Amino acid sequence: MSNTMIKSYFDRLWPICRSITGDGLRHSFQILNELIPLELTEVPTGTKVHDWEIPKEWNIRNAYIQLPNGERIAQLNEHNLHVLNYSSPIDQEITYEELARHVYTLPEQPNAIPYVTSYYQEKWGFCMRHEEWLKCPKEGMYRVFIDSDLKIGSLTYGQYLLKGETDEEVVFSSYLCHPSMANNELSGPLVMAALYQRIASLPKRKYSYRFVLAPETIGVIAFLSEFGKQLQLKCKAGWVLTCCGDNGKIHFKESRRSNTLTDRISKHVLSQIQVPHATLPFSVGGSDERQYCSPGYNLPIGSFMRTPYQRYAEYHTSLDNEDFISFSAMEESVEILYQMVLGLELNQAYLNLVPFGEPQLGKRGLYPSSNMPNTDERQVIHELMHFLNWADGEHDLLEIAEKKGVSLFQMALHAKKCEEQHLVKIV
Amino acid sequence: MSNTMIKSYFDRLWPICRSITGDGLRHSFQILNELIPLELTEVPTGTKVHDWEIPKEWNIRNAYIQLPNGERIAQLNEHNLHVLNYSSPIDQEITYEELARHVYTLPEQPNAIPYVTSYYQEKWGFCMRHEEWLKCPKEGMYRVFIDSDLKIGSLTYGQYLLKGETDEEVVFSSYLCHPSMANNELSGPLVMAALYQRIASLPKRKYSYRFVLAPETIGVIAFLSEFGKQLQLKCKAGWVLTCCGDNGKIHFKESRRSNTLTDRISKHVLSQIQVPHATLPFSVGGSDERQYCSPGYNLPIGSFMRTPYQRYAEYHTSLDNEDFISFSAMEESVEILYQMVLGLELNQAYLNLVPFGEPQLGKRGLYPSSNMPNTDERQVIHELMHFLNWADGEHDLLEIAEKKGVSLFQMALHAKKCEEQHLVKIV
Amino acid sequence: MSNTMIKSYFDRLWPICRSITGDGLRHSFQILNELIPLELTEVPTGTKVHDWEIPKEWNIRNAYIQLPNGERIAQLNEHNLHVLNYSSPIDQEITYEELARHVYTLPEQPNAIPYVTSYYQEKWGFCMRHEEWLKCPKEGMYRVFIDSDLKIGSLTYGQYLLKGETDEEVVFSSYLCHPSMANNELSGPLVMAALYQRIASLPKRKYSYRFVLAPETIGVIAFLSEFGKQLQLKCKAGWVLTCCGDNGKIHFKESRRSNTLTDRISKHVLSQIQVPHATLPFSVGGSDERQYCSPGYNLPIGSFMRTPYQRYAEYHTSLDNEDFISFSAMEESVEILYQMVLGLELNQAYLNLVPFGEPQLGKRGLYPSSNMPNTDERQVIHELMHFLNWADGEHDLLEIAEKKGVSLFQMALHAKKCEEQHLVKIV
Repeated sequence: MSNTMIKSYFDRLWPICRSITGDGLRHSFQILNELIPLELTEVPTGTKVHDWEIPKEWNIRNAYIQLPNGERIAQLNEHNLHVLNYSSPIDQEITYEELARHVYTLPEQPNAIPYVTSYYQEKWGFCMRHEEWLKCPKEGMYRVFIDSDLKIGSLTYGQYLLKGETDEEVVFSSYLCHPSMANNELSGPLVMAALYQRIASLPKRKYSYRFVLAPETIGVIAFLSEFGKQLQLKCKAGWVLTCCGDNGKIHFKESRRSNTLTDRISKHVLSQIQVPHATLPFSVGGSDERQYCSPGYNLPIGSFMRTPYQRYAEYHTSLDNEDFISFSAMEESVEILYQMVLGLELNQAYLNLVPFGEPQLGKRGLYPSSNMPNTDERQVIHELMHFLNWADGEHDLLEIAEKKGVSLFQMALHAKKCEEQHLVKIV
Repeated sequence: MSNTMIKSYFDRLWPICRSITGDGLRHSFQILNELIPLELTEVPTGTKVHDWEIPKEWNIRNAYIQLPNGERIAQLNEHNLHVLNYSSPIDQEITYEELARHVYTLPEQPNAIPYVTSYYQEKWGFCMRHEEWLKCPKEGMYRVFIDSDLKIGSLTYGQYLLKGETDEEVVFSSYLCHPSMANNELSGPLVMAALYQRIASLPKRKYSYRFVLAPETIGVIAFLSEFGKQLQLKCKAGWVLTCCGDNGKIHFKESRRSNTLTDRISKHVLSQIQVPHATLPFSVGGSDERQYCSPGYNLPIGSFMRTPYQRYAEYHTSLDNEDFISFSAMEESVEILYQMVLGLELNQAYLNLVPFGEPQLGKRGLYPSSNMPNTDERQVIHELMHFLNWADGEHDLLEIAEKKGVSLFQMALHAKKCEEQHLVKIV
Repeated sequence: MSNTMIKSYFDRLWPICRSITGDGLRHSFQILNELIPLELTEVPTGTKVHDWEIPKEWNIRNAYIQLPNGERIAQLNEHNLHVLNYSSPIDQEITYEELARHVYTLPEQPNAIPYVTSYYQEKWGFCMRHEEWLKCPKEGMYRVFIDSDLKIGSLTYGQYLLKGETDEEVVFSSYLCHPSMANNELSGPLVMAALYQRIASLPKRKYSYRFVLAPETIGVIAFLSEFGKQLQLKCKAGWVLTCCGDNGKIHFKESRRSNTLTDRISKHVLSQIQVPHATLPFSVGGSDERQYCSPGYNLPIGSFMRTPYQRYAEYHTSLDNEDFISFSAMEESVEILYQMVLGLELNQAYLNLVPFGEPQLGKRGLYPSSNMPNTDERQVIHELMHFLNWADGEHDLLEIAEKKGVSLFQMALHAKKCEEQHLVKIV
């Protein structure tokens, strides 16, 4: 999926006023379904999902503050963030003082509209640039107008299982609920969609790949309350995708168990690429790894991002917009994740079928015919012998490659040659 | 127990001529019993205690050397260290040369009287400042007079078990036998007594606390030969208290097993305080950890001290006196040990009762109501979520606190809030 | 075995044209048998040994190239390396261009004859100094003459089992097949022979010692195909000896398992000596550890060398000659290996028979009689008490010595004293 195509979807998804429920969310799913065939689940208001309950569904049509002089500010149709997400409806004349109790600004970032939500406590409110709020007169009456409704409805989440040769699953999960934010929202679903297209085009896959897109927290909890037990049995690796569209360095955040296949392949692939990167230990603050790595599930799921949430000033403000991200950074994120997938697909434990003494490689055409090999030939033969020595069924290819300090992809070439010569078999 | 009070007991205990048996030892116990209700055991001479045998009881009334000119030096009533501890009686005229074979001095510390003992080999002797010895004339006859006796009697040791809600024990052990030494004797019993008073005043205690005060080596061996099997079953943590009254930095010496609760809580509390400190690996040279950590017992008992024995020049000499120690350093030692006790009392394994996905903290008043928490609120919520995530019954509070890099005491506040909300239970 | 004696055997072995089979090999064994009573095995051509098959036996009598002007170069009787080892016979007139396809030189080391073999592919060829090859005229006809034969015969290998009190074996293995090379051939068998003589002269031995001398790779594979199962049961430690005659620093290369007795004793002995040394991790490139540490055998066998193969320019050339090695370096290698053997013989697990509390050392004459020991006495008593404390049957002497940072040999003295006093017994 090209830069241009990612951008065109970004442009269509950007203006929609999403939340954790509602038609904005459904509309967003509909657009993304052109790229990835997500199957949608509607979970009715009031449904118990683990410790939580699906709230009323929220929809909004219009909102603004009318100044004493009649001018309108903080208009929803100017920016989706102007309304406190999940605001209850209101249409009232109030004083500056009353209004002030419902206005959210960032005095330290006066030109940014903050992103504020109140899903589980009924409130109304407006979010504004602090510099704009400072201009509001303290005298005279304001009209506040929010045309929203909170009703019995449902929460929507989507998922798709791309079947492979086995039932063992690799999970990619991202979230859909933040309106008009670029890195901390749209980068996740768009990277996931592009990654889906690359994985789907593989001629064959060992693993099945599950793509989960849901409102953050409550949506993933709803998903897990239905599919979590199954993931406990089948999930072998996975990543939460978040903030993967900016130009910052790649960060892999470990799973709670810290030594799973996800952790191992992520660190290996990152160590082999020329892109700046870092590994973060597991911590509970974050995105939906909070759910996947809750102690009851404790799934082998880490997190893939570029600049982590809360480490960039634009986070959760109107400044997290198209200017902050880069479509080529998103493409690079897709490419690195795809390398991890290819690594998982190639990784195997092999069993040396000629384990007593070394196999005679010469008679199989795997050994240089003279004993004066050049440096490159010697390197190749040493890697191949290293592979055969450690192919004892207890070390997988990833471990064997790391022991030698070469890439899994290179070691896989030796494995293939040995497999063709019946020197090893896959365990 | 205030500085002044510690000092008043120090002053009363200082002049008594103690040894591993005898009335000086009994008298010392009697004074300490005003502070801590030690129950005394008398073990008769000749009793087999493990590989050892209780020696004869030693008492002494007077001792001196009379110079050829009639002057008396090395008088017991000037300093208890002047007599070789456990000297047999003598009253004899001898030459300088004969005397020299029974005189102990420290040529490199000419103003210090050394501390020398001979418990298991009958000898007589005097210990002197080297500078004083140099003044003794080589001509003329000396009179040596030691009015002591070695008789069938008993060895005395004391202990007290402060009962808690469970039978699991925490042991504090120090020694009573060195006459007129401050850091390497009285600091131990006095810190123990003050610590006892603080623990006894706790409204409730999970652990039972055993306080052992006995002559070093033989006394603790006698105690263990009676109570050692019981400690193997019940002792969960413990410290030998020695040299804890000087102004040097705090040292924790690991138990033989090095990873026991004692080791963990000691290192944690030390890491949280602003006082200079260091950890020493277990080694066999030392005080009564030699017995508690003998391979047959191998108890979870470490050692708490300030400047370790043999690392200060005053050790085992008359210079280990009140000038060398500080009563506020002793108070600080008490305070740090008390923090370790509080840490042990608070430490628990908890089980998250809402382990699938994260609990909805908002409905329990544990989550900031807006998503714009300030830095402090975010820190609090991250610590609380960290606690819940790791409260899986396999990690105790101490481990959970260390994983987050905060103090056990702070993590315990989160645990308490979660317990009140029935989010966790104690395992 | 003195320097001079080693040199005299070196001088006799040097001129023989060895290969992996043939009379040169048998003749070499015959000479070495004066030093070590190796029992020889002949494995017939065509025998299957694991994945390999014994090739035809090779013998050679004469070889040279005759220049167009009649002059003879690359004569076998000038240097054994002039003929491609295992060359088939030839006697033919050919052009310079044809000859060039059969000539091996080292353009970057123009004065060195390379060592080239072709055991498993029938070829003929000559190896020359590059500077000599450059002088050869491109016009005129050359005569190539090789008087060799490849016939049904056998491969010879030797071994000797020096019996000890137990059946547990320590293995030393080196190779015999390289003609006229000093470090990468003769240093191994000569060090092994000298080491054998020292071990054989021990009054008693706990372990049995197996000495294996065989053509590299195929010879050891033939040996293992017969004795490998037995080694799996009995071999407790072992070393491949290679390149142990130059003046470079000592290298110990770990076994595949990296934590065997071999690894532990080697690192310990090296840490105690004043000779420059280094440890290398296991890797598959190398000598016969490739066979001993193949995954099916995975024996506790490491490798002992000075400058490792391929790290010195003279390796596998005519420059690996007497000038490159040193007989005193070989003696030093023997001495260090002998220390390892002595360490293995002394290493035991001991059980403290007085494990509850410390034993009363004084009554056994093991404790200084006063409590004013000097620094040396204190060091001795601390080491002895350290030994007793850790003599719990779970830590062997080597581990106990390393915990204290002293040598196994010193700790063994304490063990002996304690054993004499019935304080410990060997487990």
